[in-house]
Amino acid sequence: RLQEGQIAVPIIAREFSSEDWAFIFEGLPKQLRLELWQTLSEDKKSPILAAMRDDSREQLVSLLSAENIEDVARSSSAEHLVEILDVLPNKIAKSLIQKLTPEDTGLVEEALNYNDEQLGRYVNHEVSTVSKGILTKDLLQEIKVEKLPPYTDSVLVIDESGHYLGQIDINLLFDCDDGQDVMQVAEFSDHVLAADLDLFEASEAVKSSGRSMLPVINNQGKLLGRFSIKDAIDVYQEYYESQMSHMGRVSDEDLFAPVFTSSRRRAVWLGINLVTAFAASIVIGLFDKVLAEVVTLAVLMPIVASMGGITGSQTLTLTIRGLATGQLAKSNLQALGNKEVLVAFFNGLLWAAVISFITSIWFENNALSAIIAFAVVLNMVIAAIAGIAIPVLLDKMGIDPALAGSVILTTVTDVVGFFVFLGSASLLLL
Amino acid sequence: RLQEGQIAVPIIAREFSSEDWAFIFEGLPKQLRLELWQTLSEDKKSPILAAMRDDSREQLVSLLSAENIEDVARSSSAEHLVEILDVLPNKIAKSLIQKLTPEDTGLVEEALNYNDEQLGRYVNHEVSTVSKGILTKDLLQEIKVEKLPPYTDSVLVIDESGHYLGQIDINLLFDCDDGQDVMQVAEFSDHVLAADLDLFEASEAVKSSGRSMLPVINNQGKLLGRFSIKDAIDVYQEYYESQMSHMGRVSDEDLFAPVFTSSRRRAVWLGINLVTAFAASIVIGLFDKVLAEVVTLAVLMPIVASMGGITGSQTLTLTIRGLATGQLAKSNLQALGNKEVLVAFFNGLLWAAVISFITSIWFENNALSAIIAFAVVLNMVIAAIAGIAIPVLLDKMGIDPALAGSVILTTVTDVVGFFVFLGSASLLLL
Repeated sequence: RLQEGQIAVPIIAREFSSEDWAFIFEGLPKQLRLELWQTLSEDKKSPILAAMRDDSREQLVSLLSAENIEDVARSSSAEHLVEILDVLPNKIAKSLIQKLTPEDTGLVEEALNYNDEQLGRYVNHEVSTVSKGILTKDLLQEIKVEKLPPYTDSVLVIDESGHYLGQIDINLLFDCDDGQDVMQVAEFSDHVLAADLDLFEASEAVKSSGRSMLPVINNQGKLLGRFSIKDAIDVYQEYYESQMSHMGRVSDEDLFAPVFTSSRRRAVWLGINLVTAFAASIVIGLFDKVLAEVVTLAVLMPIVASMGGITGSQTLTLTIRGLATGQLAKSNLQALGNKEVLVAFFNGLLWAAVISFITSIWFENNALSAIIAFAVVLNMVIAAIAGIAIPVLLDKMGIDPALAGSVILTTVTDVVGFFVFLGSASLLLL
Repeated sequence: RLQEGQIAVPIIAREFSSEDWAFIFEGLPKQLRLELWQTLSEDKKSPILAAMRDDSREQLVSLLSAENIEDVARSSSAEHLVEILDVLPNKIAKSLIQKLTPEDTGLVEEALNYNDEQLGRYVNHEVSTVSKGILTKDLLQEIKVEKLPPYTDSVLVIDESGHYLGQIDINLLFDCDDGQDVMQVAEFSDHVLAADLDLFEASEAVKSSGRSMLPVINNQGKLLGRFSIKDAIDVYQEYYESQMSHMGRVSDEDLFAPVFTSSRRRAVWLGINLVTAFAASIVIGLFDKVLAEVVTLAVLMPIVASMGGITGSQTLTLTIRGLATGQLAKSNLQALGNKEVLVAFFNGLLWAAVISFITSIWFENNALSAIIAFAVVLNMVIAAIAGIAIPVLLDKMGIDPALAGSVILTTVTDVVGFFVFLGSASLLLL
């Protein structure tokens, strides 16, 4: 029997894929990760590291000694190594590269020419290629021995210096005359991806191509490898997860990131939020006279701000989605704006009626009921306008609207909500 | 030259895929959609409808006449038709099914045995099959003529009554003796998906299988079709988009949904929010005496609530992600809780110091500085606990934490924040 805290690896685990293992590691608290890691055979380690989310990989690597990392790197393929190098300090990364075989060094250095948003950095080298001049019967013979890798629907044809020439769909391989040169059956498709393409755009391209993979070439036309539909899934998942994390005001972090790392990252969001909270406080401070006179205003003011906040975030979410997919552009922005303002106005009328009814029963003050109704409708309409304007402006300025949009929106809906409510109260009630 | 409001379909558009068309429609305001729709040839219409997001499909179908819908249905494949039927009123759907060919009726009725979260409803019939008893040379001959559909890495072997027997990897097809029965080369993999499997789980299974497709069978072992890695991408995108919409308090809606449909849907979220806002108001109302005495409290109280709100939403986001991926369970909940509380506590100390420093300069009131510091730290720690407890409890109750979590959390952080801040103020300042 196991003692508490010990790690048991069930027999079935020997068949786990690297992704299954990565998944298990991400769910383990820090101290257990290192224990489990030591039970793994060396050749499994680099695929598992590569399959982890960035932050988890970084956390695990930071627990390993320099010798351990070197051992992992030595048995790693070039594409996995690039992912591991990404989370290593520059100095260690450089010394690792020097210890590779010349072939791996070439692949890794080629990949590092591109930044971590570009396709070239993560190109997949597991690809079937054939040189021009080879006969189809020899190609078929080679496939028999070598096997086609997963997600392969074509064999890529290259020249003697590795330039991409065309591709042979597997369907054509079933129907080719043995004595032909592969160039005679190859197709010259312009469905190729440039290595400096954005990773997310590359995923969109593979997805809509109807192919299982697309070739990746550099700007000299040299074939670097391929990008498969499986790679596209990984990119999508990472993209959506990080968007969702940002919406929740948190970096895309490991479940068990160290307390101080995590505190430091979140402090940034909390600090930004504090600035907007003080902005709201300053607005409230402008109206301290009317607040001292009519305490009820302090009781009701969060309602005005919060109804505006929700309305704004509804419009913001739709706008961010439209900008992210590219379905929202100059031509239909006005139509969306008209619709959103109308929706906010109708909902404003509905909920202002409810709120002012409750207010008049609770505080028996009709002037106050009228003021809050007016403030709610106005704040909700302005919130809808801000919900479109803010992400569109951020997008134009090259800032990710998903990241900064909702903080700015909250500032607007708080400031406008408090200002309109307390301002009209001080005009009418003082 | 075109007149304003007219639709121009560029020549290149003839090569657009159904997904490209769906994308274009989703970005068009309502009135232009119908105009563009009428320019399309009949056979393109059902694939385009099927490729649209649910709400956009519903909006477009609602603009069409019954005859139009019937024409679309007649030229539609069974899998596209199921997607279209999903958004039609029951009565129209039933009458449409009666007008299909017997074969299509069978496929559609089989699909409708499953609900819209189950794999069986969206099974893809574009699959290469071969019956046992056929010789491999005849299979090869058939592939030459029929071609393998996209995302195919195996041919599925069935018996005379359509039961799934095994599969032949395409790599084996390059290496088989012509005179063999297909059963001699077939592999008997247990990588099959049951038709009643959850759609999201099916996507996870395909993704981690390393295959481009997996066979789908019903509970009698009959082969219904396949689920491809491309289908998995569609499921993932839909899943993540709807999660993000829910985080932004909006249904997964069409950009140009009708104003009243959209107002009605959003009203639900606004109404729920109003309940939580009034809960906060009631708490503030308990302390009207101290508020009347010290107006500064009204100025500062949103800061306490909002710092708690952000802290809570950070923990909530991480917890929801952990629950969604399945990486968070009973065994590591305590470890996450310890970490999150510590993170909240350290950040609480940091920001409480900043806030109380600003407060003491702004209002020159040391007691107030101490009170707000205490309230901020306490609210942030409680927010972290709530950020874990709320989604875990909701998950146990079978409610989607992404949907309800943040509303409940905000209620907690508002109520606790106002109560602690105003409560300690009334103890110490009155």
